[in-house]
Amino acid sequence: MPERTVFFVSDGTGITAETFGNAILAQFDFVPHRVRIPFVDSADKAHQAVRQINHVGEIEGKRPLVFTTLVDMEVLGIIRAGCKGMLMDMFGTFVQPLELELGIKSHHRVGRFSDISKSQAYHDRIEAINYSLAHDDGQSNRDLAGADVILIGVSRSGKTPTSLYLAMQHGLKAANYPLIPEDFERRQLPPALSTHRKKLFGLTISPERLSEIRSERRPNSQYASLANCRMEVAEAESMMRRSGIRWLSTTTKSIEEIATTILQELRPERLSY
Amino acid sequence: MPERTVFFVSDGTGITAETFGNAILAQFDFVPHRVRIPFVDSADKAHQAVRQINHVGEIEGKRPLVFTTLVDMEVLGIIRAGCKGMLMDMFGTFVQPLELELGIKSHHRVGRFSDISKSQAYHDRIEAINYSLAHDDGQSNRDLAGADVILIGVSRSGKTPTSLYLAMQHGLKAANYPLIPEDFERRQLPPALSTHRKKLFGLTISPERLSEIRSERRPNSQYASLANCRMEVAEAESMMRRSGIRWLSTTTKSIEEIATTILQELRPERLSY
Repeated sequence: MPERTVFFVSDGTGITAETFGNAILAQFDFVPHRVRIPFVDSADKAHQAVRQINHVGEIEGKRPLVFTTLVDMEVLGIIRAGCKGMLMDMFGTFVQPLELELGIKSHHRVGRFSDISKSQAYHDRIEAINYSLAHDDGQSNRDLAGADVILIGVSRSGKTPTSLYLAMQHGLKAANYPLIPEDFERRQLPPALSTHRKKLFGLTISPERLSEIRSERRPNSQYASLANCRMEVAEAESMMRRSGIRWLSTTTKSIEEIATTILQELRPERLSY
Repeated sequence: MPERTVFFVSDGTGITAETFGNAILAQFDFVPHRVRIPFVDSADKAHQAVRQINHVGEIEGKRPLVFTTLVDMEVLGIIRAGCKGMLMDMFGTFVQPLELELGIKSHHRVGRFSDISKSQAYHDRIEAINYSLAHDDGQSNRDLAGADVILIGVSRSGKTPTSLYLAMQHGLKAANYPLIPEDFERRQLPPALSTHRKKLFGLTISPERLSEIRSERRPNSQYASLANCRMEVAEAESMMRRSGIRWLSTTTKSIEEIATTILQELRPERLSY
């Protein structure tokens, strides 16, 4: 297939246009060249975006695909009038039917993030990231009562990226705690966690995948050996089963899938929905 | 306005449906009750979702708003046929026109994340998160050559959350490095950074906001005092100016806006677009 460029045009960061546009493009066996044009918030910038898009279209001899999330009607108007690409106006398509349904007008204000740096939700999110960093890998037992979620599992089972994702995306204070040989010998959960059972969620992983991941860091070590990984995973799973903790296997799952499942299962109180 | 519920229904995590639906809803002065129904990937689950949505609609006496990103045609068909909510079929709306434009069929495969845990891009993203964690706050000078971006700025100017976001969202290895009084006395960039000038990006912040943020951690300290914050910020800005480093003020910006601006300015080589 000949080269064809996809543009994501937004008056804000363009993250919504990209998330949505890429999800739609993932439905096609087609790897386009992608260009992000964020912060298009004036007539000048709109004209500049039109020139850029049309120029690329002429060079490629195919009209570019253009995903937009523009709320400024002047900017959108300029793009609509001048752009020779295939316009997918993601807001326009749904906002008008929603105005009718809700019986209220949309306000066409730019940017779901504008001034958000002063908002409580944003403040909480930054706090959650700091909390999750400070409580990564069992670094601190202080204030575990303040955690929304505490992930447990053997080393390299996926706890750290999942904790950070829960904090970054959902504003949750997500601690994580490694299960180590001492816990297996004692055959009990780490004592610091026993009073927080409701918030615990276990991550496990196939011993084969774990051995691969650990081998990247410490090749040919006892730590990374398949035999040791088998032992640790079996012990951790049996401990989680005995303790009645909910858990899942991360082996074939992305961070997003793991996080979504945890939210479904734990339903943390502080989560807005 | 009476209560009205918004559902996000997806055969995957629902993140696309949520990102997009919330961006559209942000155009209205209307705070709905929100419910996420992820992983609707069978006829059974589709019927269950229909029952849940219609039940809520009856209780509220208003038809629910339903944002869907369903690619399985059987599942979508069941929702379409049975759901009494206002359906916003985000994929269907754009996929068909795109099929015509591209001259190829979409494959209706579920989930942009399916099996992604095995992909190189996913592996790189996890590596980037680990890298950014290990290189947070100047913890390690090792392998700074491997960084895609190195953020600098005074303590609490926003470096850590921005680094983690760049890693999580864009798969970039983002180190960050604090500017401290010793650097100001020497009137030079930290020596470890001098060979990586192309990758440096500075974050600054208004002294008033910085003093507020630092006061939350260490109230009434010299560290958090407005006088000290004024001095540090002035020194840091003058150092970045002298060194010819690109920088921005984070005072009123969200992590997403900061990250998008950094990408626009630095255009890291490893970034796919």
